[in-house]
Amino acid sequence: MTLSLSVAKSHRQPWPGLIEAYRKYLPVSEKTPIVTLLEGNTPLIPAPAIAERIGRQVRVFVKYDGLNPTGSFKDRGMTMAISKAKEAGAKAVICASTGNTSAAAAAYARRGGMNAFVLIPDGYVALGKLAQALLYGAEVLAIKGNFDQALEIVREMAESYPVTLVNSVNPYRLEGQKTAAFEIVDALGDAPDWLCIPVGNAGNITAYWMGFCQYHQDGKCDRLPRMMGFQAAGAAPLVTGQPVANPETLATAIRIGNPASWELAVAAQTASQGNFHAVTDAEILDAYRLLAASEGIFCEPASATSVAGLLQVKDQIPTGATVVCVLTGNGLKDPDTAIKHNHSQFKQGIAAKLGAVAEAMGF
Amino acid sequence: MTLSLSVAKSHRQPWPGLIEAYRKYLPVSEKTPIVTLLEGNTPLIPAPAIAERIGRQVRVFVKYDGLNPTGSFKDRGMTMAISKAKEAGAKAVICASTGNTSAAAAAYARRGGMNAFVLIPDGYVALGKLAQALLYGAEVLAIKGNFDQALEIVREMAESYPVTLVNSVNPYRLEGQKTAAFEIVDALGDAPDWLCIPVGNAGNITAYWMGFCQYHQDGKCDRLPRMMGFQAAGAAPLVTGQPVANPETLATAIRIGNPASWELAVAAQTASQGNFHAVTDAEILDAYRLLAASEGIFCEPASATSVAGLLQVKDQIPTGATVVCVLTGNGLKDPDTAIKHNHSQFKQGIAAKLGAVAEAMGF
Repeated sequence: MTLSLSVAKSHRQPWPGLIEAYRKYLPVSEKTPIVTLLEGNTPLIPAPAIAERIGRQVRVFVKYDGLNPTGSFKDRGMTMAISKAKEAGAKAVICASTGNTSAAAAAYARRGGMNAFVLIPDGYVALGKLAQALLYGAEVLAIKGNFDQALEIVREMAESYPVTLVNSVNPYRLEGQKTAAFEIVDALGDAPDWLCIPVGNAGNITAYWMGFCQYHQDGKCDRLPRMMGFQAAGAAPLVTGQPVANPETLATAIRIGNPASWELAVAAQTASQGNFHAVTDAEILDAYRLLAASEGIFCEPASATSVAGLLQVKDQIPTGATVVCVLTGNGLKDPDTAIKHNHSQFKQGIAAKLGAVAEAMGF
Repeated sequence: MTLSLSVAKSHRQPWPGLIEAYRKYLPVSEKTPIVTLLEGNTPLIPAPAIAERIGRQVRVFVKYDGLNPTGSFKDRGMTMAISKAKEAGAKAVICASTGNTSAAAAAYARRGGMNAFVLIPDGYVALGKLAQALLYGAEVLAIKGNFDQALEIVREMAESYPVTLVNSVNPYRLEGQKTAAFEIVDALGDAPDWLCIPVGNAGNITAYWMGFCQYHQDGKCDRLPRMMGFQAAGAAPLVTGQPVANPETLATAIRIGNPASWELAVAAQTASQGNFHAVTDAEILDAYRLLAASEGIFCEPASATSVAGLLQVKDQIPTGATVVCVLTGNGLKDPDTAIKHNHSQFKQGIAAKLGAVAEAMGF
């Protein structure tokens, strides 16, 4: 009686965070202390303006993972990495990052009662990118060296001292990230025909493929998507087949010349009969503006790479297909690009009178 | 057979956006074209570090509304206001705003295929605050006048020209905002004992009270919360009973001297046996840092007012009570405050050697 009353009252079960939601697919046990900010469960938003550009009854959705608690998909991996670190008794975690990873690491570590250390190259002046990590209470250490040296040192630190490495080499990160594929299947009732995804370090495309395969094996979906990975033209090693010594693109989150998950990403592409393509920064900015000004969705420039790529190869999409584009980060992470690259009108010096404003508005 | 298979496959029904989720409580009909970004359904996150500061088995949750699509609770009202504007055949909407309202208005208007006009006072230099509205494709007009004049002109524009006013005087805004109260009851199974909320223009406290009362009347909750409204000390007209001519606080989102919903907010406070209190900017910053560095939650300074207030009056909370603090906006909206007011260590010039880094980390 009490139970049925409570069920009748509750509109729906609140989302318990991705580990609880997908516990049977994740390497956790009853002994694992779950460190969660109720991440995941991000919206799969219809994108009719993009679909219209393709035509032929193609359905397009965006997986807006920028609505995770720290503003990027990194939270999916970090709830796993930090929960497992806590289970192992860690008192501190460490990573080398100037962006989304440091924010997620700091937030989850502190929530789990651990210290977070973030190593960055000295002279890295864009303090704004570290706003989150600093407010979350991370200790930020700038070394007289480059990013590769920072990464090397955090690996050595984790081997020699009681700190847990939470960079993407941590295997639990991909385990958490694969849940985004589960959510897409749960929302659509099956896997999409195409999955379009930005590719930088290549961990996320690997994680999505793991997720789709696992769900498929479990009978949760009938098909598997073609994995379409898109890279920025100035940082496209998976397209050219060669590492890029000095990667360049304004999509900083995927400015990576030698991806850590190179082989796994190629395996996903091959097995799914997918492909890798490069898109220019101009194409990325066009997609970035289209998403904001036509769909109402504000993402990081790197995220827009998935939509830019989709539009580049749109003639290859089967009629009536269902396509999901992954948007990995929130546009609020990078307000400077929004200011610099919008095409909107900003009119100043208008008299504070009805007539003058009406005229400025074109009436 | 098909149905049961599909149900078996789907982990849970995806969230359809707040209008579809709460359609029976909202002034929409089958004729209303729903303009949605799947807003709402934001997490109600346990806040154990805050609860620990209170003790006595008090349970504390935060309603993290900064995870709405444009980063603030304004999306709840805007999905309603824009859907109704579209139903009425509007081709453009207008608002006077320098912050969260302009972002939400622009995103939803553009998604609905309408133009968005944003009026601001000239010489307003913090372009960063307008990054969202501009990228969403709003036309921004700066007038030679102050904010009150901008507000007066947008009201006149909406009377004389075919543009719909979506400032908070639009009655559909509060209708959408009240759904946050529904979500809290749905998650907890009943209303909380206390609802702590930042109060600026006083629309949101009014909307929450509407929501709780409506759900109570419908038998969805057994009790009603005490509505605890907190204002910044430099902008606390509801505490002093007098409008404030020159409101001052770093919590810019609630820097309002003469709230539009004054009487309704007082009615909610009186009917719920709640109260209004003022908190200093120093208390707001303490709560802002506590939320980030202990709970892993990054909110706007104005949002932290609810937690600052809770901690100020914590001795008045009944033992074992359940408290919900509303966090209205995402901390990413204001990275400057995070940079300026964090208490974290930022050590520079460390040699790129394991020993030097270990020493800097305190090993």
